[in-house]
Amino acid sequence: MNKRKIVSIIGKIILMEALLMVPSLIVSLIYGDGDAMAFVYTIIPAVIIGRLLSRVKQSDQRISSRDGYFIVASAWIFISLIGAVPLYISGGFQSYWNALFEIVSGFTTTGASVLAKPEDLGHGIIFWRSFTHWIGGMGVLVFVLMVMPMENDNSMHLVRAEVPGPTAGKLVPRMRTTSMILYGIYTIMTFILLLLLICGKMPVFDSFCIAFGTAGTGGFGVSSAGIAGYNSLYLEIVIGIFMLLFGINFNVYHLILLRKIGDVLKSEEVKVYLGIVAFATVTIALNILSLGIGAGRAFRDAFFQVSSIITTTGFATVDYNFWPEFSKHTIVMLMIIGACAGSTGGGFKISRMIILVKSFFAEIRRIITPKAVITVRLDSKPVDKQTLNSTKTYMGAYMILICIFTLILSLDGLDLTTNLTAVLSCFNNIGPGLELVGPMNNFSVYSDWAQVLLSVVMLTGRLEIFPMFLLFAKSTHGR
Amino acid sequence: MNKRKIVSIIGKIILMEALLMVPSLIVSLIYGDGDAMAFVYTIIPAVIIGRLLSRVKQSDQRISSRDGYFIVASAWIFISLIGAVPLYISGGFQSYWNALFEIVSGFTTTGASVLAKPEDLGHGIIFWRSFTHWIGGMGVLVFVLMVMPMENDNSMHLVRAEVPGPTAGKLVPRMRTTSMILYGIYTIMTFILLLLLICGKMPVFDSFCIAFGTAGTGGFGVSSAGIAGYNSLYLEIVIGIFMLLFGINFNVYHLILLRKIGDVLKSEEVKVYLGIVAFATVTIALNILSLGIGAGRAFRDAFFQVSSIITTTGFATVDYNFWPEFSKHTIVMLMIIGACAGSTGGGFKISRMIILVKSFFAEIRRIITPKAVITVRLDSKPVDKQTLNSTKTYMGAYMILICIFTLILSLDGLDLTTNLTAVLSCFNNIGPGLELVGPMNNFSVYSDWAQVLLSVVMLTGRLEIFPMFLLFAKSTHGR
Repeated sequence: MNKRKIVSIIGKIILMEALLMVPSLIVSLIYGDGDAMAFVYTIIPAVIIGRLLSRVKQSDQRISSRDGYFIVASAWIFISLIGAVPLYISGGFQSYWNALFEIVSGFTTTGASVLAKPEDLGHGIIFWRSFTHWIGGMGVLVFVLMVMPMENDNSMHLVRAEVPGPTAGKLVPRMRTTSMILYGIYTIMTFILLLLLICGKMPVFDSFCIAFGTAGTGGFGVSSAGIAGYNSLYLEIVIGIFMLLFGINFNVYHLILLRKIGDVLKSEEVKVYLGIVAFATVTIALNILSLGIGAGRAFRDAFFQVSSIITTTGFATVDYNFWPEFSKHTIVMLMIIGACAGSTGGGFKISRMIILVKSFFAEIRRIITPKAVITVRLDSKPVDKQTLNSTKTYMGAYMILICIFTLILSLDGLDLTTNLTAVLSCFNNIGPGLELVGPMNNFSVYSDWAQVLLSVVMLTGRLEIFPMFLLFAKSTHGR
Repeated sequence: MNKRKIVSIIGKIILMEALLMVPSLIVSLIYGDGDAMAFVYTIIPAVIIGRLLSRVKQSDQRISSRDGYFIVASAWIFISLIGAVPLYISGGFQSYWNALFEIVSGFTTTGASVLAKPEDLGHGIIFWRSFTHWIGGMGVLVFVLMVMPMENDNSMHLVRAEVPGPTAGKLVPRMRTTSMILYGIYTIMTFILLLLLICGKMPVFDSFCIAFGTAGTGGFGVSSAGIAGYNSLYLEIVIGIFMLLFGINFNVYHLILLRKIGDVLKSEEVKVYLGIVAFATVTIALNILSLGIGAGRAFRDAFFQVSSIITTTGFATVDYNFWPEFSKHTIVMLMIIGACAGSTGGGFKISRMIILVKSFFAEIRRIITPKAVITVRLDSKPVDKQTLNSTKTYMGAYMILICIFTLILSLDGLDLTTNLTAVLSCFNNIGPGLELVGPMNNFSVYSDWAQVLLSVVMLTGRLEIFPMFLLFAKSTHGR
């Protein structure tokens, strides 16, 4: 491993985080909420440490693929540890571990909270919490690559480790340009959403926070009332649609910019994604009609919740704990599936699901005609063996980890549905689960150690397992 | 597909089932329970239909691998449909579908019942129910192959489709001899167990039924009190140990007969299996100490339940619904893992789990040293790519099907824990689940359609998914 280069890159990331805290500091000063010093006390040491680390002398500039995974995992851990400091100093959290859970939940775009009343926090802290969603959504390293120049090979290693999905694609040959295009699209879409929210008479401060939470598919709100508090059909439709848009592979928007509409229409992942949303919305709406809420309300609630869960955002307008069992079960299935690869959404990812289902039918075809050469295709292109293999290995690791984490969590004494949905929700970066961690409850039901465990779960899920494990893997060769 | 050959083999299987009902008829006559005619009314038509079908003229004797899967799936469906008839005629079940659920549960060695009080049934019916465990445990087709000569290639296709696990091995070159060795070991072990039970003062009739239920890792008892009703530490230890023995790959016993003890000690699957049993027993025992039952009772209950669940037998001596959450969670994990491949036990199988975990670490090694050739090894032998691929595809299909079945089942209105554990329990052929389908409850909480669905789940799980799906796959070539 190239330790000096790794330390220097992590130093740059810490510097970057200090810079990214400045807007929150400004918000804090504007509203005079008294938390400005919490930011200052974090930013100053972060700048000092960041500068020291980033100036470590490096003889060798190259990093290996393995180094890339190592940097991504440790960077996410450092920014979480530092990002939690202002929350803790502000006094809004009972312990540093609570604050850490909250900020990991922010960066990983989970949106699970330990707070019953986020409105008790100052404006600066609420803004920071939501802003972490926005940064984490597209990726911390992707952001760093955009701002700080780096060799193309090195960038590729970092992006491959951070961007979710079975394959990480370059939009253009140069990684830095790719980062810029991605963040460009992301910023413009967030800005449009912001304007639409403000037009819908949402307070400006709330509009910023909700726009960040929607764009990153995070899900932190600004008050305990959540999106339901605005009581506006217009806002629910706007947020519902934008959650879906941010759950689509960003390559699609790039293709639209290039006017390659034909390629967009061919995308199987988008078709399956929208198909699942439509199917789940209709079946849930029909199912919750039995609650006597009328067809309009049923469709409105069903659409918003389906969009919120499949994109792993986690905003809620109703407490689906009170829905009939079929609808609750459907919500759990959507939690597992997740959004498209290459989007800001989490979960198992639609494209992985497609590859798995196709592999299953390929296996059946292989039994029927043992001698035929059978390939699995996605968007009419054959999926290479390496991707097929990784996808299936990922599925295995995913399921085994969900089981192990749920088992350990059970030591805290809560029931199976709560623990299983808490782990699914954290691993897939959604936010709410069912029962005691349902949309109208919060994660303070868990004790401190369980919150730290769930923080690890969120990070493992956001980084898609491998980087976290590579942190502990023995290096087998020199660099 | 070779339709004529398929019809003829199915005819032979129906004949075989009629023959296998004769012992139950005799039991019925001995005890004079009034159900003898229920068997006669089933046996006579079965013999007539079986003879007619088995005599269909065949020009071509060969069957393809695909035909093998087709025969296995349809044979299991036919023997279930016919096997349920005496149960229904006897009047002990509310509907034919209830009886079908019960007998599918028998043949698949699930042991889930729709009856609150099995002791209300006649002795002949109780005997038949338990005897189906014994037949289903080692395999219906394996039994047929032992009794009726068949070409070696044809036999191999059938065995591959019926015997659980990632690979189906021949013990000796001739399939018929393999079947005989397997059933020989199985019969002798069952007989030893029977003697031990009788020595433990279990009534002789009960001893037969419990021996069948243990050997097939089924789990039907003879009364609602179950194994706890005998209130004997000796019996619990004997049954506990024999459940574990029947959950071990039968190849191991063959190796012992050949005095290849070195190969036995090398078996990773057996080591991991016993390791999990030991670990789960100790942690559960420590966990349930909090119930104030004393260390002796805690270990006794923990060992019996762990052995019963991991081998997918499903006998119960306590209601683990009242255990602390960690123990309940552990039980659910054991449900998923299951026993060794090539045993009479169900579940995902230990060897598949080992292959998955090793693939995960192979993937990590691949990231660290991208150019190295990395192989996954089991028992020091490299696992071939085809097996690796099939195992992972199986995992994917397994998880997706668990989700889909649970979702459909939710339409019956029960809660997530009940539905999820009911599906896990039926798919893995265990018997009890948690909550409303816990060890002291039964599956009559589900309506008729849900019981039929769960019957499909049991068959899909027992035959390991592919045969059931191949029933509906279009044939792509002539034969």
